[in-house]
Amino acid sequence: MANVTAYAAPQAKAPLELTTVPRRPVGEHDVLIEIAYAGICHSDIHQVNEDWGTATFPMVPGHEIAGIVSEVGPGVTRYAVGDRVGVGCFVDSCRECVNCEAGEEQYCLGGMVGTYNGTGRDGGPTYGGYSTHIVVDENYVLGIPEGIGLDEAAPLLCAGITLYSPLKHWNAGPGKRVAIVGLGGLGHMGVKIAHALGAEVTVLSQSLAKQADGLKLGADHFHATGDPATFGKLAGSFDLIVNTVSANIDLNAYLGLLATDGTLVNVGAPEEPSPVAMFALIGGRKSLAGSMIGGIRETQEMLDFCAAHGLGAEIEVISGGQINEAYRRIQASDVRYRFVIDIATLNS
Amino acid sequence: MANVTAYAAPQAKAPLELTTVPRRPVGEHDVLIEIAYAGICHSDIHQVNEDWGTATFPMVPGHEIAGIVSEVGPGVTRYAVGDRVGVGCFVDSCRECVNCEAGEEQYCLGGMVGTYNGTGRDGGPTYGGYSTHIVVDENYVLGIPEGIGLDEAAPLLCAGITLYSPLKHWNAGPGKRVAIVGLGGLGHMGVKIAHALGAEVTVLSQSLAKQADGLKLGADHFHATGDPATFGKLAGSFDLIVNTVSANIDLNAYLGLLATDGTLVNVGAPEEPSPVAMFALIGGRKSLAGSMIGGIRETQEMLDFCAAHGLGAEIEVISGGQINEAYRRIQASDVRYRFVIDIATLNS
Repeated sequence: MANVTAYAAPQAKAPLELTTVPRRPVGEHDVLIEIAYAGICHSDIHQVNEDWGTATFPMVPGHEIAGIVSEVGPGVTRYAVGDRVGVGCFVDSCRECVNCEAGEEQYCLGGMVGTYNGTGRDGGPTYGGYSTHIVVDENYVLGIPEGIGLDEAAPLLCAGITLYSPLKHWNAGPGKRVAIVGLGGLGHMGVKIAHALGAEVTVLSQSLAKQADGLKLGADHFHATGDPATFGKLAGSFDLIVNTVSANIDLNAYLGLLATDGTLVNVGAPEEPSPVAMFALIGGRKSLAGSMIGGIRETQEMLDFCAAHGLGAEIEVISGGQINEAYRRIQASDVRYRFVIDIATLNS
Repeated sequence: MANVTAYAAPQAKAPLELTTVPRRPVGEHDVLIEIAYAGICHSDIHQVNEDWGTATFPMVPGHEIAGIVSEVGPGVTRYAVGDRVGVGCFVDSCRECVNCEAGEEQYCLGGMVGTYNGTGRDGGPTYGGYSTHIVVDENYVLGIPEGIGLDEAAPLLCAGITLYSPLKHWNAGPGKRVAIVGLGGLGHMGVKIAHALGAEVTVLSQSLAKQADGLKLGADHFHATGDPATFGKLAGSFDLIVNTVSANIDLNAYLGLLATDGTLVNVGAPEEPSPVAMFALIGGRKSLAGSMIGGIRETQEMLDFCAAHGLGAEIEVISGGQINEAYRRIQASDVRYRFVIDIATLNS
């Protein structure tokens, strides 16, 4: 490989434009993937806007990648040409630390290598999925089972695993009362997965505007957090709350919704610290926790689970030329529930 | 019974003075306890000062009570006259909610009945352990095993269980790296118990002033948090941190000391909310939690554990006339590590 077509932000906060970026030659353990679809994650916008610190430009976002293997290195054993595969938020890690050895590469102590805006172990910048091809070490590639379309599978690589991992870790399942805060790209996957895991699922959304959607996605209950009465009515009601909202919300109010021994897990993070009242934790042995995507093994488990339960993301497929408009619409919360770029139309 | 001698605060923020308070007649399931020792908990001072909301006066503080049964009601089956017993932070609860049924009465959904500054189920105010006698339902009375002095046992009823419960709940034991923040009345029991549970114990104290004590109590390591280098040196080092400091500390710095999947448990609570950076939780699936004393069953387990391991509190025994001075010394952190009132000298 050499240069491939991609959509990139030439500099911070700039609109994305069609360009080319280099891909490394296919190495001993690499697979070359012809990308079919790439999801647009809200964090792509944060990265382009340098909300999370200095970034490298040009930047090709995209860490929800689904495609077909088109070439494999001589040492590759896990994948063959023609396989349906995916790539998520990272493409490498140190492989030696306690977390990598435990299969929790997302918490690599050396720092995982981000799929884009990262630095590969060869020292070069990484470029993400808004492009026609990507070269990835086979150990960081996932298999996408038959039975899920590549388009609806793409968002599973970030949004899906971001919800699946905490739901599994904190034992969402039969008899557990689980609330999902926010019904967006992350939240809608949370509802689907928690329901498929057998939990009693409640959506906590600012208004009732998405109530019909929420119930259709698998929620048992739907409440508006804009109504202050909700917090009294539902006090002590949940074993697990997964908060998908990145903006600063009143965490103490949500802690009040937890039953004894309950956990409020954040999968998004506001830029500013949130005020937390220790009394809200102490009065019921409650926990406030965080969770970040998932490891390769668990991501594969999630894909297999979603295929077995017929779960894909709810998507709106767009062309390359619609990416900047999609960014604006995401910031206006105008998407149900994930934009996915059809890479075949990247230059149209 | 009728009136008994006690030390009480006649009104908020006032010095305590010798007085009498009523005790109810010994009922069907009650035991009358002749109190031998009562520990002074920092929360006694908060309650007298109304730091935690409006309180009832006169107030007889004291929820670290050890003594001898001197009378039992006709329906009492668990205790007999002459038994060594203790009373902790609560003397009743609703007995019907899911938490009471689970033996976690400290989280009673109806609200446990505090040993003092509470309202008994008969509607009367409760008075605590700074007094010669107390009448308590046998189901809220603990047995103090032979092998612990009643004086060193008294603080176990609050300080001991406050540390034992989270250490057990979050699996402190062999192979676990546990840090105790603050080496005071609570912290010193945390060090003893965590060490006896087999954990590798580190004390995190503002300075090294108590280092020799800490190591003698069972700590393997001792670090000064006043030295900013400590937070870099110990980053990612602990599976469990129990914070016994009620003042607002920089929780995000302490979250940085946790390893992946680690938990920072607060057993004290500052009055103001603490700013918590969600990134500090998300980057390693960390948890910030709270824990409050323990249930009756677990408190008994703790007392038995302490007796089996020869653990009592490190105490300074005082007379009733020294209570107000003890309050001043506690606020100046001038106690190693718990004041215990010798009730035989209450009026001297």
